[in-house]
Amino acid sequence: MLHFECDYTRGCHPEIMRRLAETNMLSTTGYGEDEFCSSARAKIRAAVGNDNAAVWFCVGGTQTNATVISALLKPWEGVISATTGHVNGHEAGAIEHSGHKVITLEHENGKLSAKTLRAYLTGFYNDEAWRHIARPGMVYISFPTEYGTVYSQRELEEIHSVCREYAIPLFIDGARLGYGLCADGGDVTLESLAGECEVFYVGGTKVGALFGEAVVFTDKDLCPDFFTAMKQQGAVLAKGRLLGVQFDTLFTDGLYLRISQNAVDRAGELKKILRDKGYRFHIDSPTNQVFPIVSDEKLRKLKEKVNLSVWEPHPDGWVIRLCTDWATTEEEIKLIKEIL
Amino acid sequence: MLHFECDYTRGCHPEIMRRLAETNMLSTTGYGEDEFCSSARAKIRAAVGNDNAAVWFCVGGTQTNATVISALLKPWEGVISATTGHVNGHEAGAIEHSGHKVITLEHENGKLSAKTLRAYLTGFYNDEAWRHIARPGMVYISFPTEYGTVYSQRELEEIHSVCREYAIPLFIDGARLGYGLCADGGDVTLESLAGECEVFYVGGTKVGALFGEAVVFTDKDLCPDFFTAMKQQGAVLAKGRLLGVQFDTLFTDGLYLRISQNAVDRAGELKKILRDKGYRFHIDSPTNQVFPIVSDEKLRKLKEKVNLSVWEPHPDGWVIRLCTDWATTEEEIKLIKEIL
Amino acid sequence: MLHFECDYTRGCHPEIMRRLAETNMLSTTGYGEDEFCSSARAKIRAAVGNDNAAVWFCVGGTQTNATVISALLKPWEGVISATTGHVNGHEAGAIEHSGHKVITLEHENGKLSAKTLRAYLTGFYNDEAWRHIARPGMVYISFPTEYGTVYSQRELEEIHSVCREYAIPLFIDGARLGYGLCADGGDVTLESLAGECEVFYVGGTKVGALFGEAVVFTDKDLCPDFFTAMKQQGAVLAKGRLLGVQFDTLFTDGLYLRISQNAVDRAGELKKILRDKGYRFHIDSPTNQVFPIVSDEKLRKLKEKVNLSVWEPHPDGWVIRLCTDWATTEEEIKLIKEIL
Amino acid sequence: MLHFECDYTRGCHPEIMRRLAETNMLSTTGYGEDEFCSSARAKIRAAVGNDNAAVWFCVGGTQTNATVISALLKPWEGVISATTGHVNGHEAGAIEHSGHKVITLEHENGKLSAKTLRAYLTGFYNDEAWRHIARPGMVYISFPTEYGTVYSQRELEEIHSVCREYAIPLFIDGARLGYGLCADGGDVTLESLAGECEVFYVGGTKVGALFGEAVVFTDKDLCPDFFTAMKQQGAVLAKGRLLGVQFDTLFTDGLYLRISQNAVDRAGELKKILRDKGYRFHIDSPTNQVFPIVSDEKLRKLKEKVNLSVWEPHPDGWVIRLCTDWATTEEEIKLIKEIL
Repeated sequence: MLHFECDYTRGCHPEIMRRLAETNMLSTTGYGEDEFCSSARAKIRAAVGNDNAAVWFCVGGTQTNATVISALLKPWEGVISATTGHVNGHEAGAIEHSGHKVITLEHENGKLSAKTLRAYLTGFYNDEAWRHIARPGMVYISFPTEYGTVYSQRELEEIHSVCREYAIPLFIDGARLGYGLCADGGDVTLESLAGECEVFYVGGTKVGALFGEAVVFTDKDLCPDFFTAMKQQGAVLAKGRLLGVQFDTLFTDGLYLRISQNAVDRAGELKKILRDKGYRFHIDSPTNQVFPIVSDEKLRKLKEKVNLSVWEPHPDGWVIRLCTDWATTEEEIKLIKEIL
Repeated sequence: MLHFECDYTRGCHPEIMRRLAETNMLSTTGYGEDEFCSSARAKIRAAVGNDNAAVWFCVGGTQTNATVISALLKPWEGVISATTGHVNGHEAGAIEHSGHKVITLEHENGKLSAKTLRAYLTGFYNDEAWRHIARPGMVYISFPTEYGTVYSQRELEEIHSVCREYAIPLFIDGARLGYGLCADGGDVTLESLAGECEVFYVGGTKVGALFGEAVVFTDKDLCPDFFTAMKQQGAVLAKGRLLGVQFDTLFTDGLYLRISQNAVDRAGELKKILRDKGYRFHIDSPTNQVFPIVSDEKLRKLKEKVNLSVWEPHPDGWVIRLCTDWATTEEEIKLIKEIL
Repeated sequence: MLHFECDYTRGCHPEIMRRLAETNMLSTTGYGEDEFCSSARAKIRAAVGNDNAAVWFCVGGTQTNATVISALLKPWEGVISATTGHVNGHEAGAIEHSGHKVITLEHENGKLSAKTLRAYLTGFYNDEAWRHIARPGMVYISFPTEYGTVYSQRELEEIHSVCREYAIPLFIDGARLGYGLCADGGDVTLESLAGECEVFYVGGTKVGALFGEAVVFTDKDLCPDFFTAMKQQGAVLAKGRLLGVQFDTLFTDGLYLRISQNAVDRAGELKKILRDKGYRFHIDSPTNQVFPIVSDEKLRKLKEKVNLSVWEPHPDGWVIRLCTDWATTEEEIKLIKEIL
Repeated sequence: MLHFECDYTRGCHPEIMRRLAETNMLSTTGYGEDEFCSSARAKIRAAVGNDNAAVWFCVGGTQTNATVISALLKPWEGVISATTGHVNGHEAGAIEHSGHKVITLEHENGKLSAKTLRAYLTGFYNDEAWRHIARPGMVYISFPTEYGTVYSQRELEEIHSVCREYAIPLFIDGARLGYGLCADGGDVTLESLAGECEVFYVGGTKVGALFGEAVVFTDKDLCPDFFTAMKQQGAVLAKGRLLGVQFDTLFTDGLYLRISQNAVDRAGELKKILRDKGYRFHIDSPTNQVFPIVSDEKLRKLKEKVNLSVWEPHPDGWVIRLCTDWATTEEEIKLIKEIL
């Protein structure tokens, strides 16, 4: 079987595995207070271009989202998200479990617009009953979105500008951050993204690590107790150096962006193949996720040889999702080409 | 000023006040274990026609909703509600504060349909990722709805039938129950409604009491620990007999329905006046809430003499809400007639 | 039966009932935004001697405790309480339900000492693992305590001084505040108490009201969103004016302290009777709660004619609690004298 | 520096690392639905001797405790633990964050006794106010305890017998399970332990894995939705097969117990050395944790060459904790001998 169902089917980049093996029998302090974590933090701060940033390492995405969101909100505040946001639909109610409403707004191709956001916030405070309603206390977006689309730098600036106007933090879910930064036609860099939010994370699980997300608060004073917040959520890894080693490797010699580029390049090839074969697309994603429309029969045949995600029904059959990742080979693209 | 902004602007029915005064200096056991509560419980069970029902008294609606919902759900379960449901928009995130997602579905005039419900549930369990998503664990509807509309008995049966199919309880918010039971053209009775849900409440705050909601579990074994659930939510009134006295009075000699009928009758007169004067209506509500459309200028004038609720903007001006209640007099209708 | 089991067996002071009846058919704005609430707030601010205070009205004690505590704590913070604190043992886990640990310290006769508090806080921050542990974020004491004892002004100052040193607020549960302020030999006044804490409440339920607790933040900027916090906890009474009328009456012409004094005076008489009859006391309470030790046989006999609370077993039988209240009459004391 | 501060300073057993490297570039289904997890589950069920058991894999201990406890409790229920229980003191309030009280009982050398437990439960239900108090809904013990001590099989049976009498589940925290099963003089086996509880976990993080805890419900119907509970807590690892590979290796050819025995053997040698040198012990632990008492001066010297945990002050200086682990070598024992 070919695996195109998601971007976390393999282990980790071989260089990471090499370093994990190499350091395996070392003894270090736990909980992320080791030298590998220190080194990784320094490299991430440098990559972000912000000495004042605080960097923390969590294990997975749902955990990271819940920890960041509940750490920053007051009890009666909710987090604004596109209806398609991962925190809204795919985390088994983790945000609500921590006590907060996910306030959903309309999206366009997975993206929240500054206009929609401002309209909501204006309307909220114009409602005479606003003190009776869950307060918007944060904006959550993902980069790239759940549909593989990306915001332009201008769009990020506009959203962030609305957030600042209402004095609420902007949180960017970067579970697939690398693929977003390498997006075809994108103009956002790690540094420029970090400049337009209060907190974001660099996804490792989907971009070359065994697991791990590096949370970056762009102002270290925003949440000085984040370690305890993580501990309470069960998000502190005892052998924290495993995260340090992984992110240190990813942020050495540009590995993170290099392997991200691979996924986007392979996805580009895949899209070309699909286009050439006459497939239409549900969404035009410039990252590592491809959303062709396939007929019932085609879907049945594909499933015999390819693991893929069935996204949603479509008048002409189905929207499916094919993902490339940091390790997808040209050979795999060739193989799927024959099947498509 | 005339008060038509809501149905909780006055104190309580004079007969209730009389009995509160009369029993004021009596000493009784606290927490709802007194004789007045016992009597009220017995009368409500009789009115519901269900000896197996358990009856509990809470103070207010948001509290009741949060207590009932969190008492019955598993941590990873959410409650299904129309987007217009009170638990979704007007309780400052109380449901989420207790850890649960409000899963919102489309409504029609404030009502959830069995069809919409079934489509959602079918889709939910057809999604391969369903175990990653907040589980639908209860259905919440209000009777009457936030738009003053009511379900027919047939509609309740259809919704309840879907609930039973999926083995999830149906919870009916009856904050304005009396007005729903007296709705023009309605066919639902207290007994028939109780037969089509697992739990509901008889609203007192908006229907003649100073405060209080009587929660009825139609099977007393559904939540035997509900007292402790209430205590944890701060919903146990120390001098519980105040609720006993009020509900005992409301359920003596048909007072509850009689005063509910008054509100519906006065609303009927109000609607006739509005119709005769050429107003159009946003929603055709058969209960005590009336939603005429008024021009900008008219609204400004009305506000000088009438307290009312501005519902939402409308191409021709505004939708406003005028409420009658258990005590609205023919005189008050006459007075507002002159202003409209 | 005589009722000495607690201080909330009766309704309310007749003057309150009179005013509730008198204002019953008035229409007012809801949610505490009416003129009665405004008047009550002004009178309480005056009594407290603090124009900068914010005053809010809740319905009951458990609700108030949970709302105040969760409004002020960060998610990973807990509230320090004596093991005997009401929030620890008698609220069905309401504080934990809102996500926070109750951190319990040893008490002496129900009181927490500044010394115990400082020792705990010093130890906490000396523990290398402190970032892994629920953070002390608030101190909760009750005045009077659950044992009827009171802090001296000096003791309050010392506790508050430790709190300020660690920058955590002091919250005083005043469910029986009036009885504490009138304590035999006490030196604390409403004004002096308000000067040594960040938030406290004036208990109404146990001191002459039907229900109600007036929360006072001594700096109104400490929690400007408290209304929404209350709403989320189901603590906003729709007909808020009921609380306004009650507290306005209690704070007119010194009624609150006058009726509190009655309870303390009657308790003094009761203690004298008990002492004269040779009873010993488990705790020497200077307020309205009396804790004599009675034999098995005596207890059996008493229970035939007096409702009382059995506190705990004692080598010589049982510790029982007898409560007087704002309405206990000299006649009732005479009657119980004959039985004791 | 020598590392004796805890049992999670190194990576994983070399055989685990070998298999992780070997399987690294394989693509598998995520979330624990892969063949490695299936194999590990089967081996654990076999080791436990219970075909009806359900096995789930979490990442870390705090996360596992919070997920299991909140999955099984009703909102108003708390979990009983020794005051020394990990869930009480060292998880930053994770249990309370999920809404539940930790009900603490006295311990003896870290152990809860059946007698203490029964006394508490009897007292609880004898209290007239029990419905006002957080309900005991589960018993939590750790095996071995936080003090390195172990229960005998008889003691487990007695505790479990009380639990069954009150119909509440027994949950055994096995973060260091292997070391407990290999305890000097212990008579508990994996199978016998599983027979005396409803749920427990096999700790991997501290016993040879990089990370991971295998949760075993001894009746798979006890919590069929546990996957969703895990998801909500952020406890589902995307690349779940990493846990499968690790536990499959640990449960192949008796590796788990073999490496556990190493830690206990080395700890035995360490204790003998200490005893021979005249040290006294704070607690007599039969597992991998050793608690000698050292003078101020000795502590200062030790700290120059050995990482260790300072447990608590002692009249003669300090109680320190020295831990061996699955990989501690005889060479390391020799080295520390020279320093002690």
